Amino acid sequence: MRKAVILLSGGMDSSTVLYIAKSEGFELHAVSFDYGQRHVRELECAKAVAQEAGVKEHIVVRTNMDAWGGSALTDKGIDVPENEPHKDRIPITYVPARNMIFLSFAASYAEAIGSQDIFIGVSEVDYSGYVDCRQEFIDAMESAINAGTVCAVQDGRKIKIHTPLIHMTKAAEIKLGLKLGVDYELTWTCYKGEELACGTCDSCTLRLKAFREAGYEDPIPYQAASRGES
Amino acid sequence: MRKAVILLSGGMDSSTVLYIAKSEGFELHAVSFDYGQRHVRELECAKAVAQEAGVKEHIVVRTNMDAWGGSALTDKGIDVPENEPHKDRIPITYVPARNMIFLSFAASYAEAIGSQDIFIGVSEVDYSGYVDCRQEFIDAMESAINAGTVCAVQDGRKIKIHTPLIHMTKAAEIKLGLKLGVDYELTWTCYKGEELACGTCDSCTLRLKAFREAGYEDPIPYQAASRGES
Repeated sequence: MRKAVILLSGGMDSSTVLYIAKSEGFELHAVSFDYGQRHVRELECAKAVAQEAGVKEHIVVRTNMDAWGGSALTDKGIDVPENEPHKDRIPITYVPARNMIFLSFAASYAEAIGSQDIFIGVSEVDYSGYVDCRQEFIDAMESAINAGTVCAVQDGRKIKIHTPLIHMTKAAEIKLGLKLGVDYELTWTCYKGEELACGTCDSCTLRLKAFREAGYEDPIPYQAASRGES
Repeated sequence: MRKAVILLSGGMDSSTVLYIAKSEGFELHAVSFDYGQRHVRELECAKAVAQEAGVKEHIVVRTNMDAWGGSALTDKGIDVPENEPHKDRIPITYVPARNMIFLSFAASYAEAIGSQDIFIGVSEVDYSGYVDCRQEFIDAMESAINAGTVCAVQDGRKIKIHTPLIHMTKAAEIKLGLKLGVDYELTWTCYKGEELACGTCDSCTLRLKAFREAGYEDPIPYQAASRGES
């Protein structure tokens, strides 16, 4: 059975991608990261989603990526922006080279277990200035992986980075995910780590909009009144 | 003052590279990794070398890269090979995609502090099957970094990976390092983490041979009698 390494954050996108890999018949190996995010809420969701999907193995890589801060997601001194649309600027939630770090670990894991398939839930559709969500970056990273791993260079077993969501709207993603059995109630999207999702941060706003467009109700509870504001 | 990010393991190569960056007038920012190596001896050396060189900042990234083992350097169940020359095969000390992970973190750090220069002590001369020490991989990784960081994509501030040792023999490296003020007594090379270097592992053997060829005595003490054996 072919093995796939899936980058799993516990959010909607990576959870959907996990089920896409599952539907393609892969043995599932999920990797999550505990890197100094503000909260571990999404890690708990990653574990729940992985279990629900029946993964073979779920690895949590711990690292102090917050050693140099520079992002609202890791630097506790910066406030998370609310309802602040970002057009031509980099959102403050940007973690430098985060997907590059994630994909490097995924490549290491893939080589160790003999997998040639890495899945990541990046999208250019909801691209909000995250340069490391673009196909151009993914292609460059795939080249680097295939120049820097023994399996690819010496054994001819090249590694492919799958980006099934790259051109998919979030609404289409939700429709597909529901068909594949994703339980979106287990997923976490809010930038904040409170008991209930805030419903007002950039991330909640995008999620709620996507569910509306898909014609489904978001199964997770939100803080009172916030739902209507988005 | 231009800032440089230097990958510093505490070994000879990275310590030499640190002093090369220093000689080129960079403000020095060193990064070391605590990733489940068998011993922390080389991390202590990295700290000593960084301090001696007068770095501006020294970051230690902690991560459980040993989560999936696959290498004698991280998997405590595998013995370190002794006096076992490796020609056409990958040494068991190989950590999958290690330099890719290191360079990804270096890129993140570089972007966070506004540096455009990463230094790494890889060499093709003493290339022992480590595919991620080849210039071809470094070039691919540099492309990935410049496709995946905001500074490069949006601000036009591209990042360069410097590999000053790529074509240098270890003997030439030692001569250069001594001229630049590297205190090799502070550096650690042995794969094992004992009080004294063993003098017999692959790594010690290469080091001792290099010092002999350079015409200098290795300033670190070795376990009794081992020196003659190599």
